[in-house]
Amino acid sequence: MSSPELYRPIELTFEGTAAIPTDRTPLTVRLRHAASRTEHVVPGFWDGGTTYRVRLAPELEGDWTWASESDDPSLAGRDGAFTVERGADHGPVRVAHRFHFAHADGTPFRPVGATAYNWLHQDEPLFTQTVDAIAEAGFNKLRFMVFPQGGGYVEHVPTLMPFEKTDGRWDVTRPVPEFFQRLDRAVELLGERGIQADVLIYNAYDRGQFGLDELTEEEDAAYLRYLVARLAAHPHVWWSLCNEFDQLERPDDRWDRTGALLGEIDPYDHLRSIHNWIELYDNNQPWVTHASIQNGSVTTDFGRANLYRDVWGKPVVLDEIKYEGDIPERWGHLDAEQLVHQFWIATVAGCYASHGESFVTESGSLHMVEGGPLRGDSPARLGFLREILEGLDVVGLDPIDKWDDPAHVAGIPRRQYVQYLGRSAPTSWSFRLPIGVPGERVEEGDVFEVDVIDTWNMTVTPVGRRFTVTEVQRNDAYDRVSEPVALPEGAAVALRITRIGG
Amino acid sequence: MSSPELYRPIELTFEGTAAIPTDRTPLTVRLRHAASRTEHVVPGFWDGGTTYRVRLAPELEGDWTWASESDDPSLAGRDGAFTVERGADHGPVRVAHRFHFAHADGTPFRPVGATAYNWLHQDEPLFTQTVDAIAEAGFNKLRFMVFPQGGGYVEHVPTLMPFEKTDGRWDVTRPVPEFFQRLDRAVELLGERGIQADVLIYNAYDRGQFGLDELTEEEDAAYLRYLVARLAAHPHVWWSLCNEFDQLERPDDRWDRTGALLGEIDPYDHLRSIHNWIELYDNNQPWVTHASIQNGSVTTDFGRANLYRDVWGKPVVLDEIKYEGDIPERWGHLDAEQLVHQFWIATVAGCYASHGESFVTESGSLHMVEGGPLRGDSPARLGFLREILEGLDVVGLDPIDKWDDPAHVAGIPRRQYVQYLGRSAPTSWSFRLPIGVPGERVEEGDVFEVDVIDTWNMTVTPVGRRFTVTEVQRNDAYDRVSEPVALPEGAAVALRITRIGG
Repeated sequence: MSSPELYRPIELTFEGTAAIPTDRTPLTVRLRHAASRTEHVVPGFWDGGTTYRVRLAPELEGDWTWASESDDPSLAGRDGAFTVERGADHGPVRVAHRFHFAHADGTPFRPVGATAYNWLHQDEPLFTQTVDAIAEAGFNKLRFMVFPQGGGYVEHVPTLMPFEKTDGRWDVTRPVPEFFQRLDRAVELLGERGIQADVLIYNAYDRGQFGLDELTEEEDAAYLRYLVARLAAHPHVWWSLCNEFDQLERPDDRWDRTGALLGEIDPYDHLRSIHNWIELYDNNQPWVTHASIQNGSVTTDFGRANLYRDVWGKPVVLDEIKYEGDIPERWGHLDAEQLVHQFWIATVAGCYASHGESFVTESGSLHMVEGGPLRGDSPARLGFLREILEGLDVVGLDPIDKWDDPAHVAGIPRRQYVQYLGRSAPTSWSFRLPIGVPGERVEEGDVFEVDVIDTWNMTVTPVGRRFTVTEVQRNDAYDRVSEPVALPEGAAVALRITRIGG
Repeated sequence: MSSPELYRPIELTFEGTAAIPTDRTPLTVRLRHAASRTEHVVPGFWDGGTTYRVRLAPELEGDWTWASESDDPSLAGRDGAFTVERGADHGPVRVAHRFHFAHADGTPFRPVGATAYNWLHQDEPLFTQTVDAIAEAGFNKLRFMVFPQGGGYVEHVPTLMPFEKTDGRWDVTRPVPEFFQRLDRAVELLGERGIQADVLIYNAYDRGQFGLDELTEEEDAAYLRYLVARLAAHPHVWWSLCNEFDQLERPDDRWDRTGALLGEIDPYDHLRSIHNWIELYDNNQPWVTHASIQNGSVTTDFGRANLYRDVWGKPVVLDEIKYEGDIPERWGHLDAEQLVHQFWIATVAGCYASHGESFVTESGSLHMVEGGPLRGDSPARLGFLREILEGLDVVGLDPIDKWDDPAHVAGIPRRQYVQYLGRSAPTSWSFRLPIGVPGERVEEGDVFEVDVIDTWNMTVTPVGRRFTVTEVQRNDAYDRVSEPVALPEGAAVALRITRIGG
């Protein structure tokens, strides 16, 4: 408890009785920040035997006090105080600038995610290899499921399950501490490697194998309260309510209520989304912080993914755009060039995307199911994309002339732009920008530098000349004087255009 | 009152006092259908002097009774009965099959709309010429505004205004009967010509000229009640809450409330939408029956407009996709070929579109502002499109393999399909269809006929051979035996593919 760090979890341990029903919160801690009078009510949880825990995550520097409350006298009435100092953690990721993300301390976060649905349920060494592989590739978010996966391409059936059974039925009032302690460690491991944990709370892949998709709404809620109490203090947690929610035959309003409950009970207000199969969820629901979308086709051509931004007015993360791999199903046999291409299209649409790999592994499974080493050629290029994004001067890329720019230039007007020329560049590019919006319009005399980015060969080549706007038309601005920029014809090229004066 | 026809308005006239404030409903009529026990409470309205009216629109055949209620004894306590018989009217247009429209009697309705915002405020002969022109071209919906338009391209300023002024401010408690009687006649005129009246209730084009966009929310509501009481009995009325709503600086929740009010007070539950400028409205709001969208870019390429269907799960009418014309603004200088092309793209995206014309007229205005004769080359082709749509066996076209079909085939699986090949057809087409969904999958042996539609030259040419599916793959079905269909190379061609057996 000495010198807690800003945003880092602080765990309080209590010894109580084992008789407290775990279908409700056994204790809470009221957490107060002296200077700002900020107050959180943080739920605790049972962790086996007579042990109870509460995990605090202070998001402000300075002096905090806490006091426990419970129906159980052995858990109630404890209190304490601590002083929080700034450390190395940037804090939870939040929505920033409407369509983008930043950590609580303001540091922009650009998700370039990976997927290994059933990772949590694998044994060593696969479990650790997976984290090594995605960290080394440069991914900064991992989508994985709490409940195990059944069905095709699943070759490993876990023995450790989240609940005990009572009369042959999962009993959410009896969570299995070992299961959730393993989940704790999994989330911590991702955090240590700089990877956001995109936790899929429910899933549609049970396929009758485990029966965990047959919980009632009340049982789902009890599990949700337990999960949030355990994990929410980790700064790098994102909540994804369900993967392919519409594969489950449930009315949408059940998801509305469960999502709203998640928003209410998480004292730290982590990012919240829900991921679709064929039917899209109403991402205008207030509990949804960003859209998590499955639809590869919006990244196969320009002018599509940006439409999702408009309709929800929230960040759009294209969490399933098909996979690099070699299986017969069309969702699993993209070549690496195509997947990288689709990431760049997502980027200039002002959106983000996630990777998945579907080469058949030795066990007969897929990386996007069980994890393991990555074999594809896209991860290195996606790590390079992440570096490009992290090197931008702007928090995120927005389509400048969102419906009408034939070049689909994205950025912040008069500051910095990215234009992606597709899988096969022409021989040259002449300086041209969309003019921007009133108050942020490119003007004659504005001076820019241009870098040529080879998205596949992972090079950034400054053109080494300056471009000055000589003509501003109704919708476009041009440098009519400078020579065109020679391009590596046929390569998958993007341009970074940065204003340096004028 | 003799032999009222199904869906047709019945007007009851009352003589009351002139002292009733018109900021609330002066009387209502309770309308009861004996056999079904259906009941409506229909609001009445003041129509000048001591005259009040209530307009009934029975939507069931058989015996109805009615009784008036009012705080004014001279309006209260009247009653009557009538028997409704089926006539020629198909009744109000409703949402059908989730993404499409049909009249109350089940007859499909395929909107191919026109636009003349300020039509209501023009003098003769322009006023009548407009209706003649759009009816003769074959349009079946007209978007027009109740409040007059100010700003660019508006050359005619009306003298007849909707309200009296009190202390220099519009007084919504004192509507001008002559204004609304003229509106009545305008709506009736459209009905007589088979044109749905898409009534723009508020608009963002006042530009400080009239001050009608400065009404408070309460004043807007008083006007809305009056308008609905007058017009809702017309079967062919559609409500469009506002044109380019987001040009007005109002919080979205004001629109939410006004839209919800509209849904509550319309006894006949007409179609309701709201039309955007740059920011999209949350069309998931329950009061919205269909999305009315401005965004031309979703019809300039395949695979875009269909995304809107997914996110709202409602019909999508692309009510502004730019205009055929010759003005410098890029929203107003499409050539006819391009506009017709965009309508066909909207069609195979499972959406509908509206026409507008922006050649500068002799007065210095535009057709889409004031109306008049049409001069463009697109209207004839859009009339042809409407004929094609009305000749379909299916209520509407849905993308079959909505995100993944490279050919963007639309229709109803195993029944009828339309494929649009774009502005420039190849020399030939080989029979291929997306397989459809489980339960509606194309099977080996299915037999089809194919018609070649030249969308510009307005011809339908049967191929005159039958095609039999010989191979069903994972996603596509083929006739590998038949010769390819020769096409008019370079023409804007669509194919109609109809199953006739197998």
